[in-house]
Amino acid sequence: MKPSIPKGTRDFSPDEMVRRNFILQTIRNVYERYGFRQIETPAMENLSMLEGKYGEEGDKLLFRILNSGDVTNEIKEKRDSIKTSDLSEKGLRYDLTVPFARYVVMHRNEITFPFRRYQMQPVWRADRPQKGRYREFYQCDADVIGSDSLLNEAELVQIIADVFSALNIGVSIKINNRKILAGIAEILGQADKIIDITVAIDKLDKIGAEKVNEELRSKGVSDDAVQKMQPLFSVKGNTSGKLAFLDTFLEKSDIGKKGIEEVRTLLNYLDTLKFQTALLDLDITLARGLNYYTGAIFEVKVNDTRSTFTSSVLGGGRYDDLTGIFGLPDVSGVGISFGIDRIYDVMLEMDLFDKLNLNKPSTKVLLVNFGSKEEHYALTVLQKLRAADIKAEIYPDAAKMKKQMAYADAYKIPYVLLIGDEEMQSGKLTLKNMTSGEQSKHEVEELMNMLHE
Amino acid sequence: MKPSIPKGTRDFSPDEMVRRNFILQTIRNVYERYGFRQIETPAMENLSMLEGKYGEEGDKLLFRILNSGDVTNEIKEKRDSIKTSDLSEKGLRYDLTVPFARYVVMHRNEITFPFRRYQMQPVWRADRPQKGRYREFYQCDADVIGSDSLLNEAELVQIIADVFSALNIGVSIKINNRKILAGIAEILGQADKIIDITVAIDKLDKIGAEKVNEELRSKGVSDDAVQKMQPLFSVKGNTSGKLAFLDTFLEKSDIGKKGIEEVRTLLNYLDTLKFQTALLDLDITLARGLNYYTGAIFEVKVNDTRSTFTSSVLGGGRYDDLTGIFGLPDVSGVGISFGIDRIYDVMLEMDLFDKLNLNKPSTKVLLVNFGSKEEHYALTVLQKLRAADIKAEIYPDAAKMKKQMAYADAYKIPYVLLIGDEEMQSGKLTLKNMTSGEQSKHEVEELMNMLHE
Repeated sequence: MKPSIPKGTRDFSPDEMVRRNFILQTIRNVYERYGFRQIETPAMENLSMLEGKYGEEGDKLLFRILNSGDVTNEIKEKRDSIKTSDLSEKGLRYDLTVPFARYVVMHRNEITFPFRRYQMQPVWRADRPQKGRYREFYQCDADVIGSDSLLNEAELVQIIADVFSALNIGVSIKINNRKILAGIAEILGQADKIIDITVAIDKLDKIGAEKVNEELRSKGVSDDAVQKMQPLFSVKGNTSGKLAFLDTFLEKSDIGKKGIEEVRTLLNYLDTLKFQTALLDLDITLARGLNYYTGAIFEVKVNDTRSTFTSSVLGGGRYDDLTGIFGLPDVSGVGISFGIDRIYDVMLEMDLFDKLNLNKPSTKVLLVNFGSKEEHYALTVLQKLRAADIKAEIYPDAAKMKKQMAYADAYKIPYVLLIGDEEMQSGKLTLKNMTSGEQSKHEVEELMNMLHE
Repeated sequence: MKPSIPKGTRDFSPDEMVRRNFILQTIRNVYERYGFRQIETPAMENLSMLEGKYGEEGDKLLFRILNSGDVTNEIKEKRDSIKTSDLSEKGLRYDLTVPFARYVVMHRNEITFPFRRYQMQPVWRADRPQKGRYREFYQCDADVIGSDSLLNEAELVQIIADVFSALNIGVSIKINNRKILAGIAEILGQADKIIDITVAIDKLDKIGAEKVNEELRSKGVSDDAVQKMQPLFSVKGNTSGKLAFLDTFLEKSDIGKKGIEEVRTLLNYLDTLKFQTALLDLDITLARGLNYYTGAIFEVKVNDTRSTFTSSVLGGGRYDDLTGIFGLPDVSGVGISFGIDRIYDVMLEMDLFDKLNLNKPSTKVLLVNFGSKEEHYALTVLQKLRAADIKAEIYPDAAKMKKQMAYADAYKIPYVLLIGDEEMQSGKLTLKNMTSGEQSKHEVEELMNMLHE
């Protein structure tokens, strides 16, 4: 039987795990410094919790779990009237936001609000696999729920900046506000088409103004409205210039003006923090796909001369009523989600992992195995090294020296310890530096000090 | 819609996560000190990799994933001849051992053997949920593959002892060897019934000798053989007494004698390491359910006056040909698997978490929010604290003082920082110790030193 794994899924080797853990740990450290607390939810959710939350397209991409027991009986009974829902009650989570909303409602009596939670777990989507898009991938989310203060948005922007700075990746943090988009739709007399407009505008970066206009018209947006929108696609300049443009454009829209005010408040907070505004980009065509956003929206793109990546590495925003679908209305939340698989690819392209000292988790010294007698002596040395928290291994068989050295090389173990007859008699053990090839003799106590990190 | 989660699954709150992470991190530290390297495999495996690996019973407990697209067409076409395999090609992993074997075979050209890997991920089983048994739970495995040296067994026993010592749980490490069990079957003239005998003997602890004998007879083991086995069920005394008994009992079985020799070699290694033999229990009725074991077998039970738990918290053993099913024969491996959900329950019962300082990940100081003007001043203080790696939060709204204090209490935040008009003018901020209620005034620099861990 030829072993295989499902398409769109991956194994992670020890080297990959060390790098992935570095990214996860970096994000975790920042989240905790900002007072976020970790939760975990099950991989499986009841389908009634998931269906209808991600649009029609999302429903199709849910991985459904076959009910236990013999489903063929069910099939024979129902025959042509059988539906997928007769075969499956559970599905794998599609993101971490909907399970979080479900969690908040189920545990609302134990939670003190505002609740700052973070969550780092895999999600599953039956997407067509392609380069950089997987069917199983990790999300790393932070959300504040139960507070509508824009201070939360400011803190999330700081978190984003802190994480990418710790990872040494240059980025551009794009922000916008859904109320501005709603205001635009209103001003154009197309308030009922806000979703179509949002979806179309969201593609501006990818397909250009020409194609966006086509899509708008095909969705029934009037020629007049499309015409009026064009200045929006070409607003240039700094943030205050863009805001001044919007002040005029949205003068007659209350919701639009509210959106502008929210952006100004957020920028004001960041100003107080002497936030590096070069990172920030008010992008009034940024829309984000998911329709539950109601206020601020965020997206991060890599903006670094060392990288060719242009895809988004983070998304997020404010949702005013996510828990409403589960029976708890009027709880506002705002959150972000790091895409660590893409961040990994970016760091790999930029050679960032090589510059980090990520070898720590692996073994510091390998004890060569010379056979039964020496082995027992070596074991007592090994025990002392480990008791001093030095990561150490003994080769488990008395294999040929060449093989044991090749093992040390393969695992990039920096030192090898040789304990033969002479060493056992003198108590002075031979340490070989695998990089320089140098050998030196030391007593155990001395080794413990030398090899300690 | 009333929110719910699938039966047998759980949400983990921030408090639970801190404790679970402590257990995982403790095991991870020991694994890495012994030179084990982490891998991860996908939650979903192709069903052809999983089916037939866990016996008939195991196949029934696999969670199967419905194929994407419209399965109702498939159903209409195949009608009565439809099989589960027409609807599902993928399943959730049932343990970490079979995916690891699959990993080793798929990546054999990248791996340097012996390969010491560890893996900590959830597994899923469609078991009937009951107290302490879940449908989604974590396994924490370490295996050495590609070496048949018994030194590996000795190291795994040390790892077990190190982990439970670090967790402060008293345990009994039961060991046995499948070759001893095979020898017993041989001596009884029932070599063909080795699996039935193993399965029956495994229940001795739970159901007693009487019921085991009944089961043996019902499986066709002769009265004579059952009679001959009885001394095995009542062997008492220390390890060398038990081994002497086996020397006689298995005198005429080569495989049995090989098993005894392996146990003696393992004990000899542990002796060299001055291993606390009180922890070890050679239990010649220990069988372990899974049939792929061929040599040493391990099981750990809690043995601590502070705990009422009797269930197993770790299992493991030597398997000589696990990768053979995937086309790579003659690769020997040995491994262990910690059951962290049960360890969690044991530690909770023993109040062990309370004695640990597990509060570190949560916030050290909460900045009270007095409103817009004070907020901006507070933000600059907050920024300085965080830059000094002090976990700090600001309450996001200018809520009533009582509410903000209740928030600090609920999250066990030890300090609260008050910055009002007076504090802003003097630069001396009011720090309140939430435990003692004491208040004191400090400049920011001073606070940074005080609150640093």
